[in-house]
Amino acid sequence: MPEFDQVRPLRWQEGGLELLDQRLLPGREHWIRCTDHKAVAQAIRDMVVRGAPAIGVTAAYGVVLAAMAQPDPEHIEVEQLEGALVLLADARPTAVNLGWALGRMRDCLSEGAQPVARLLREAEAIHDEDLAANRRMGGLGAALLEPGSRVLTHCNTGSLATSGFGTALGVIREAWRQQHITEIYASETRPWLQGARLTAWELGRDGMPVTLVADGATALLMSSGLVDWVIVGADRIAANGDVANKIGTYSLALHARSHGARFMVVAPSSTVDMSLPDGDAIPIEHRDGEELLSIGGQRIAAAGARAWNPVFDVTPARLVDALVTERGVLDQPDSAAMRTLFGDGAGR
Amino acid sequence: MPEFDQVRPLRWQEGGLELLDQRLLPGREHWIRCTDHKAVAQAIRDMVVRGAPAIGVTAAYGVVLAAMAQPDPEHIEVEQLEGALVLLADARPTAVNLGWALGRMRDCLSEGAQPVARLLREAEAIHDEDLAANRRMGGLGAALLEPGSRVLTHCNTGSLATSGFGTALGVIREAWRQQHITEIYASETRPWLQGARLTAWELGRDGMPVTLVADGATALLMSSGLVDWVIVGADRIAANGDVANKIGTYSLALHARSHGARFMVVAPSSTVDMSLPDGDAIPIEHRDGEELLSIGGQRIAAAGARAWNPVFDVTPARLVDALVTERGVLDQPDSAAMRTLFGDGAGR
Repeated sequence: MPEFDQVRPLRWQEGGLELLDQRLLPGREHWIRCTDHKAVAQAIRDMVVRGAPAIGVTAAYGVVLAAMAQPDPEHIEVEQLEGALVLLADARPTAVNLGWALGRMRDCLSEGAQPVARLLREAEAIHDEDLAANRRMGGLGAALLEPGSRVLTHCNTGSLATSGFGTALGVIREAWRQQHITEIYASETRPWLQGARLTAWELGRDGMPVTLVADGATALLMSSGLVDWVIVGADRIAANGDVANKIGTYSLALHARSHGARFMVVAPSSTVDMSLPDGDAIPIEHRDGEELLSIGGQRIAAAGARAWNPVFDVTPARLVDALVTERGVLDQPDSAAMRTLFGDGAGR
Repeated sequence: MPEFDQVRPLRWQEGGLELLDQRLLPGREHWIRCTDHKAVAQAIRDMVVRGAPAIGVTAAYGVVLAAMAQPDPEHIEVEQLEGALVLLADARPTAVNLGWALGRMRDCLSEGAQPVARLLREAEAIHDEDLAANRRMGGLGAALLEPGSRVLTHCNTGSLATSGFGTALGVIREAWRQQHITEIYASETRPWLQGARLTAWELGRDGMPVTLVADGATALLMSSGLVDWVIVGADRIAANGDVANKIGTYSLALHARSHGARFMVVAPSSTVDMSLPDGDAIPIEHRDGEELLSIGGQRIAAAGARAWNPVFDVTPARLVDALVTERGVLDQPDSAAMRTLFGDGAGR
C-alpha cells in the first residue's frame, strides 16, 4: 500500500466480507467474516465498522451477500431483497452514505442478467470510487493549508472510516506528505474514543505523529493559538450546507470561530443529502448510555447514574469556512452554492 | 449527617489525617491515613484528595502533622516549618486555596504558646469555616434559580471537593432541597472523570438523580434548550473576575453564552487572588499525559501517541453571569465590583 496509508477497514474475500473489528483497536487486530447480510447489518449497528463512507461500502457488500443467498441467484427481483435493503438501511440512522450506497445497489439490480456478478461489480465500484474521491479531496483540501499549519481533527475520518486514505484525515495525510503540517492534534472523542483509539493508531501505523487532547481541552488549545485549521468529516450534509458529524464537532466549530481558527469539512458527495433543507431535519442517533457509563467494559460511573448519549450533532453552515468534496471546494457553503455543485440529487 | 449531604473527603482522627481515596471511587471506598506532612503533600499531588477547598483544608492539617514531628513541639519557630510549608504549597499550582490556608497556618504559628494545639484549632477553624461558607453560598446561589430549572455542572464541586456540602454542587443541593431543580446534568470531565466517578457517586449517595453527558455533547445539550444554568466551582479567581477552573469550564461558558443559558461560578473568598490582575497570570497545571492515554490503568490510546493535558482553563469574567461567594453575589463581576467585595487582600 502507498506511503502514509497502510490501513484498510474491510475486504471482500472468497465470497465473504471481512471487517477489521474497530471495537478492539488499538489493542487487538481481529478480522470478522460476514457471510450473510444480517451479520453485516449487525456489524454496522455494533460499530465493528464505522465511519460514514465505510458503512456505505459495507452495506453495498451486504446486498451482494443477500443476493447470493437467494434460491435462484440468476433471477432476482428487487422485491426479494427488500427485507435486506431495509435491514441494512436501518442499521444506523444519521450517515446518509448508507442509504446512498443502497440506492445504487437497488438501481443496479433492475438492469439485466447475472445479478450477483453485477451487484458485486457495483459494490466494488462504490468501494473504489470512494478511495478515488478521498485522494482527490486530499489534494483539494491540502491546497488550502499554508506551510507550517497546526491542525486539529475529531473522531476518526481516516482509512479506517472509508475505503482508504480518509476524508478529513486524507487532507491531513496529503498535507503532511507535502510537509505543510507541523502539528497534528486529535481530540479523543468521547464516548467511543475514536480519536484516541483509532486515529492515533492509524497515524502511528503511517509514521505520523499525533498529540491527543481531551474534548474539553480544545477551547484552551485554540485560545492558546495552537490551531490554524480544524478539519473534520461529515455523516450528512443538508441542502443549506449544515453538517451532521460526530458529537463534539459543533463545539469545535464554535471554538474555531471564537478564536480565529478556520473550520474545514471534508466529505464525498455521497454524504450530501439535498432532500433535507437544513440540519434540523437530520436524524440524530442516540446510543445506549452504557457507552458513556463504561470504558472498555470497565464501569466508570457510579451505579444509578443515567446518561444522555447523542452521538452526532449539527454544525450550522455559517461556521464552515471550507467544504471540500471530490467535486470541488465551497468557501462558506450556502444553499445557492450547494445547489450549483450538487443540483437537486447530490451523490444519488 | 444532614439530608442531601452524606459524604466527607477527610477527617482528623487520633492525631492523624484520614483521606477518602478519590482515585478509587466509585468502585471502592478506602481511607488513607497520613501521619506526616510528606504523605499529605504526596496525597494532594496524586489526587487522593482534590478540589480547591478540600486541598486547602488538607494542607492545613499537614502543617499540624509537621509541627507534631518537631523535636520540641512546645517551642516551634516558623523557620522550622518552612520546608513543610513549601512542600505543601508546591503540591499543586493552580488552586490558590492551598496557599491561602498555609498563609493562615503560618500567621497562627507566630502568636504564642502551645503551638501544636493552636495549629490544630486553626486547621479545624479553616475546616469548619469552609463548610459554613458552602452552606451560605448554597442559599445565595439557589435563590438565583427559578423553579423548574435544569442545571449542568462540571467536574466535582461537592462534599468530596470541600469540607462538605460543596460549592457549585452545594447550590444544586440546596436548590434541589427547595424543589427548584427538575434536572441535573453532569459533564463527565475527562481526563479524570470527576463528573462520572465522583459527582454521580456523591449525588447518588444523597438520593439525587443525575444524567451524565460527554464533554463534547454539552454544546448540543445547550443548543437543544435543555439547560437553564451552568453552575461550576473555581480554583482561582483573579482581581478582574477571570476564573480558573477544571479544564472544559471555558468551553461550557462559551456555549452557555451562545445558547442563552446562564453561567454561575460558586467559590469561597479563599479562592479569590486579588494579587493577580487577570486570568493570564494564573498558573495552569499540566499533568502527565498518561491520564489521557489510559483510563483506570487500562491503556486506551494507541502506542506512540502523545497527549496535551492541561487540567485547568481560564474563563474570562465577561462570560460569568453570577459569581457567588459567602460574602455575597456579584452579577457580571468586574475589577470594580471585585475590589468592593474583596478589598486588596481577598480571603487572606
